[in-house]
Amino acid sequence: MEVIITGGQGFLGQELCRSLLQVDGLLDAHGKKLQVSKIILVDTTVPVSRLGVNADEKVQLESVDITSPTQCRALLGKVKSGHALSLFHLAGVMSGAAEKDFDLGLKVNLDGTRHLLDACRARTEGGAARPKFVFTSSLAVFGETYGEQGRAVGDTDKIVPKNTYGMTKAVCELLVNDYTRKGFLDGRTARLPTVIVRPGRPNAATTSCFSGVVREPLHGEDAVLPVARTLPHSVTSTRALISNLVILHDAEWPPTLADRSANLPCRPCTLQQLVDALYEVVPAEEHSKLGKIIDQEDAFLSRVVGSMGSNLSYERARELKMVPVPDLKTVIEEFLEDFGDKSVVSRKRRKTA
Amino acid sequence: MEVIITGGQGFLGQELCRSLLQVDGLLDAHGKKLQVSKIILVDTTVPVSRLGVNADEKVQLESVDITSPTQCRALLGKVKSGHALSLFHLAGVMSGAAEKDFDLGLKVNLDGTRHLLDACRARTEGGAARPKFVFTSSLAVFGETYGEQGRAVGDTDKIVPKNTYGMTKAVCELLVNDYTRKGFLDGRTARLPTVIVRPGRPNAATTSCFSGVVREPLHGEDAVLPVARTLPHSVTSTRALISNLVILHDAEWPPTLADRSANLPCRPCTLQQLVDALYEVVPAEEHSKLGKIIDQEDAFLSRVVGSMGSNLSYERARELKMVPVPDLKTVIEEFLEDFGDKSVVSRKRRKTA
Repeated sequence: MEVIITGGQGFLGQELCRSLLQVDGLLDAHGKKLQVSKIILVDTTVPVSRLGVNADEKVQLESVDITSPTQCRALLGKVKSGHALSLFHLAGVMSGAAEKDFDLGLKVNLDGTRHLLDACRARTEGGAARPKFVFTSSLAVFGETYGEQGRAVGDTDKIVPKNTYGMTKAVCELLVNDYTRKGFLDGRTARLPTVIVRPGRPNAATTSCFSGVVREPLHGEDAVLPVARTLPHSVTSTRALISNLVILHDAEWPPTLADRSANLPCRPCTLQQLVDALYEVVPAEEHSKLGKIIDQEDAFLSRVVGSMGSNLSYERARELKMVPVPDLKTVIEEFLEDFGDKSVVSRKRRKTA
Repeated sequence: MEVIITGGQGFLGQELCRSLLQVDGLLDAHGKKLQVSKIILVDTTVPVSRLGVNADEKVQLESVDITSPTQCRALLGKVKSGHALSLFHLAGVMSGAAEKDFDLGLKVNLDGTRHLLDACRARTEGGAARPKFVFTSSLAVFGETYGEQGRAVGDTDKIVPKNTYGMTKAVCELLVNDYTRKGFLDGRTARLPTVIVRPGRPNAATTSCFSGVVREPLHGEDAVLPVARTLPHSVTSTRALISNLVILHDAEWPPTLADRSANLPCRPCTLQQLVDALYEVVPAEEHSKLGKIIDQEDAFLSRVVGSMGSNLSYERARELKMVPVPDLKTVIEEFLEDFGDKSVVSRKRRKTA
């Protein structure tokens, strides 16, 4: 089993790679468990490791422009036809960038995904076993939700995005379903919540502050909040997300279900709740070390984040036995454990770990 | 106001053209009523009239390949920037053809529509008033419906197509919504039921027999039914469909609604019910003139037709004051009135007409 991960320079791509190096095999399209013999980590420029994963001899680093059909085909050509292939497609233009640059959003998120799907199809039609294709969509597809006020939005609810990012993801969900139905590949789509707490610098996602509100103060830096503190938004932890992508990959999909998508486990939270959890996790005597939190609401960002669904259910994920998202305190403690080397506060080993 | 109709060689394109030549103006994107000064009837080859519409000096005939972005832009260039433009996009690869030729389905139905949307956007960004864009989707988008058994599927239900035709239409609905939200155009999508009774020869739609079962016997020819007589399917009449496309074009869309799509009025029927209605419409003394009906079920076609939704509701169409579909007897009588010149039975003027 060889694995391709797009968006390999990104935080999630590298975390997924690290996880797949440790996992005891993956299930191919026939449900057969195979050891991961190679992971091709792909990004627009050759990925460099922030996490040490590149040191592993199983990891191969490649620069691929997914907006080029030729490069997508060449990428899949790096996996021999006789080998099982799984592709985790994480690359994409983030919500804020796609809203500001419509053409870029469509070119990368829609056309790029289609080129990868077509490369998988060409491989299958060339005689290889159907690859597995794990596509990362987003809960942002649920812009205009229906039903009774207050009801959670689930896997079987209508998808009407209210931003270009969500639209491109929704379109690709439909493509993944049909490419799967046609037997070109074995596709599954994960609708990702916002993942917190991301290490590193803020990214181009409109929801970047849901990590920054915790990370920056822990680094002794000020956090600027461009989104209202009271705006609810659905999040997951890094650990839960990575576990659930692997569970989704291995899941036996209900054979009668044309829809290959699932909301991933998530929990609603506000920036204020994250601030509260942060101040609970950090001992009172260290509160003075934390960076300040500065409200600086940006109407554009608040509107985009507000247009994403926040009250979500995830029945299908439960049926597929995905892991739930821990409480916010645990999410912050996990961040300190996994990525806390720059933290200005003390790192305790979590009791529950 | 100048109008472009794609699929202008088709039955619906020509009927729509005929209707727009008679209508007392159309509403532009600002709700202002404008007379139709020109209709550009477009198809892959220069359309020829089956209905006499080309004789009108307002009608201009053009050959355009919508899979070419350049040709789409050139087409819109035929309408001066200072003139209001409405585009009715009826062209497309039918359900049976798209299921057999996946690439063709995507190239024409998905990419072709996108090229037209992009041409509209370029026009708007060039300083012209936002064009209206009426897109014809299909009730075939509802392949995998949810909710309680027996409940009708409506405008706010999830769209999970189970054939490639429906998938391409569903994707374009999402594009129309987002191009509208971005202000590139004023889009509206009609989810069309199968239109009966079409004149002429069978077409490439999997549902062609829902017209043939009436038309062929009336022409003294045998009708072959490749779909089970008991399979329910949603239909509309030609007259109702054309009226409703014009109503949809003129409708003032609820400003808060991101979804720009509406199920068109329809009614479920089976081939058997059409046979029964035919034998009621035709006087008993003329039954012997009718062509035979031959059951010859094709598993492929039955599967595709069965994968389209059949129990549909259309609340949004009601709110937009669209006209309902008459009973099946009236549908057949309208066909005899409008297209009955080759009929082997006598044509009575309908009492209700």
